Amino acid sequence: MKKAVIITIGSELLRGIILDRNSKYLCDQLKKLGYDVVKTVSVGDDVNSIVREVRRAIEEADLVVTSGGLGPTEDDKTREGVAVALNKRLIMDHDLKSKIEKRVREFYSEKIPENISKQAEVIEGAEVLENTVGSAPGQLVRIGNKVVLILPGPPRELIPMFEAVKEKLRTENAFYERTMSFYGIPEAKLEEELKDILYSQKDVEIATMVDHVHGVKLRLTTGFEKREQLDRMMEKIMERLERYVYGFDDETMEQSVFKLLKRKNKKIAFAESCTGGLISSHLVNVPGSSEVFIGAVVVYSNDLKERILGVSRETLMKYGAVSEECVREMSEGLHRLTKADLCLSVSGIAGPTGGTPEKPVGTVFIDLYDGKSHYTKKEFFKGDRNVIRLKTSVNALNTVREYLIGFGE
Amino acid sequence: MKKAVIITIGSELLRGIILDRNSKYLCDQLKKLGYDVVKTVSVGDDVNSIVREVRRAIEEADLVVTSGGLGPTEDDKTREGVAVALNKRLIMDHDLKSKIEKRVREFYSEKIPENISKQAEVIEGAEVLENTVGSAPGQLVRIGNKVVLILPGPPRELIPMFEAVKEKLRTENAFYERTMSFYGIPEAKLEEELKDILYSQKDVEIATMVDHVHGVKLRLTTGFEKREQLDRMMEKIMERLERYVYGFDDETMEQSVFKLLKRKNKKIAFAESCTGGLISSHLVNVPGSSEVFIGAVVVYSNDLKERILGVSRETLMKYGAVSEECVREMSEGLHRLTKADLCLSVSGIAGPTGGTPEKPVGTVFIDLYDGKSHYTKKEFFKGDRNVIRLKTSVNALNTVREYLIGFGE
Repeated sequence: MKKAVIITIGSELLRGIILDRNSKYLCDQLKKLGYDVVKTVSVGDDVNSIVREVRRAIEEADLVVTSGGLGPTEDDKTREGVAVALNKRLIMDHDLKSKIEKRVREFYSEKIPENISKQAEVIEGAEVLENTVGSAPGQLVRIGNKVVLILPGPPRELIPMFEAVKEKLRTENAFYERTMSFYGIPEAKLEEELKDILYSQKDVEIATMVDHVHGVKLRLTTGFEKREQLDRMMEKIMERLERYVYGFDDETMEQSVFKLLKRKNKKIAFAESCTGGLISSHLVNVPGSSEVFIGAVVVYSNDLKERILGVSRETLMKYGAVSEECVREMSEGLHRLTKADLCLSVSGIAGPTGGTPEKPVGTVFIDLYDGKSHYTKKEFFKGDRNVIRLKTSVNALNTVREYLIGFGE
Repeated sequence: MKKAVIITIGSELLRGIILDRNSKYLCDQLKKLGYDVVKTVSVGDDVNSIVREVRRAIEEADLVVTSGGLGPTEDDKTREGVAVALNKRLIMDHDLKSKIEKRVREFYSEKIPENISKQAEVIEGAEVLENTVGSAPGQLVRIGNKVVLILPGPPRELIPMFEAVKEKLRTENAFYERTMSFYGIPEAKLEEELKDILYSQKDVEIATMVDHVHGVKLRLTTGFEKREQLDRMMEKIMERLERYVYGFDDETMEQSVFKLLKRKNKKIAFAESCTGGLISSHLVNVPGSSEVFIGAVVVYSNDLKERILGVSRETLMKYGAVSEECVREMSEGLHRLTKADLCLSVSGIAGPTGGTPEKPVGTVFIDLYDGKSHYTKKEFFKGDRNVIRLKTSVNALNTVREYLIGFGE
């Protein structure tokens, strides 16, 4: 298996101010391209450190990826450091210089910063990689069978540049990986339900990861050349367990609910008690959410449940605020107020106090009302206050998802 | 200046799954103790890599800090790797072994995992560092003038152990650093107002950092032995500019508002339009917030502003939803509903559409009502939709803060 070393460059990384996110991104990407990442290093903007670490890395690995230190200022030493480490010259590329100057003029300002021409210095024999976002181009240098890839530091520049160049780095060990996120089905049952599909393909590696808030993730991995078989396998899983699948890869529950609401042209409103606005803020964080979100009320107290939502005092006295009756009345009051297609209400005991033997901390009622029917659930969540609130939010949004795909009662 | 190298150890760090947060924490801490951190490295659970990197680090630095690889399993190679790198023996500490076993029995389970005794192997001459959270002790080894500090990987174990040992690592270049966060005062005015205080102390280094959402941060840095002078300087600044100071060090606007509401025994409610629940979710994220937070309504549409808050149709027709009149009526409606001591309302145009020549995107009205008087502001924020929403939230919470410290109108 080919080895890789990542070197992130920038004194700010060593001052404890900036968190290095490039290493994690590159580790993940390189792993999928078939590399064994054996080391990551961060050094400051110091040419000797860069030279030393690049030389070591070239000895220890087949691929060396650097990020950062490509700006136009005195501080930026990466081009120089890599050139020295590889015993290569830095050559001014005049065409590239004109391109960079044109770009800077278009996107930044009339005045070209001094030293911008530094960014047009290319290591001899290197391939120049276009920066579609900023001014600093990347470089790809081949030394025999080894490769040094020089990338800019800002993630918004590094990621598209890496995406554009990655085909050139793929090894015979490259693999294809997809994730499906499930909610409402235990890990053991998931495996039982899917065993004929999962174990029909010898070349697909299966991993399940359980997260007590967000459900079970199923990760499927196979050789890059078998990616179509893996996609077909996912389709089969989807056919069988659609009810439980809320997302692919990095998709979140709220993104999934937003997409469904938009596709079905439905608008939603929330009445939140124990979650204190968490459900709304999850949905509102999805870009475009105002198209599907009418509004919300956060009603901690019984008094507000009465006054805003018209929950009857009788219900509150007889059944309590944490009850099936109360969440149903909350939804109906919310519907009178908002006329939303879907009204979702939650009321529960997030703790640490407020529990009783009949309704211990973690008891939550969730109701979804479409103006005709109620879909009401009682749940019991373990955890501290924040965990209970988070679990309630995800579960409540999943209730909406199930309704929208036709599994609501 | 003494140099330091950080080595984080664990194969999971190189698989792109876990984000290494220990390096940033240690960089920040070591900087304050007077070290120049010259490199951070991450390697897998591989004894040869650990030996190689520790040897290099000992050559390049005065202090080497490792994190991770101290568990009881086969994978955990840090003790062994450091011992080999330093040409020292690993010695079983039988007292330590009994302590670890007792601890595991108390906190985890009756069954002592096999190999747990591995965690009682101590590098000869090392000082053992107690782990108050988990089972793996740390170690501090002195080699001439150089120090190797071995810490566990999980941040919840690493941080308290580092806090307990850090006094031993302080150098003559150690410094003391505090930050004050200001809102509502431009950087230049801040410096002007404070110049007599700021430049009275030659040994205090001053830095200002501007964040277009959260205001100006003033960072004051001085030698560790002068920390009392620096604290007195901060008191003077506070006396003069209290109105603008919302936090010290990492304190956020919402934490500051929460503390004030609690101290003054006031309860608050929000009526949010363009912020879509963001103000509520900021406050609700502060532990204990339910003591001061009555509830909120998120009312995007005019219809909901009328129906829930009783904003008059005439106001909406004549002045629009984004107007002084509308936010005042929102607050009054909210007060009727909630009887909260303080009612905060916002309405604005977050964009990207909805702007007009008189009310361009970024126009926001904020009103704070205490049942008697209104404190109403018109603001104009630049940025995209999310930035405008965020700026509105912070500004609105700052309005509450100013009111509570006696600067409201």
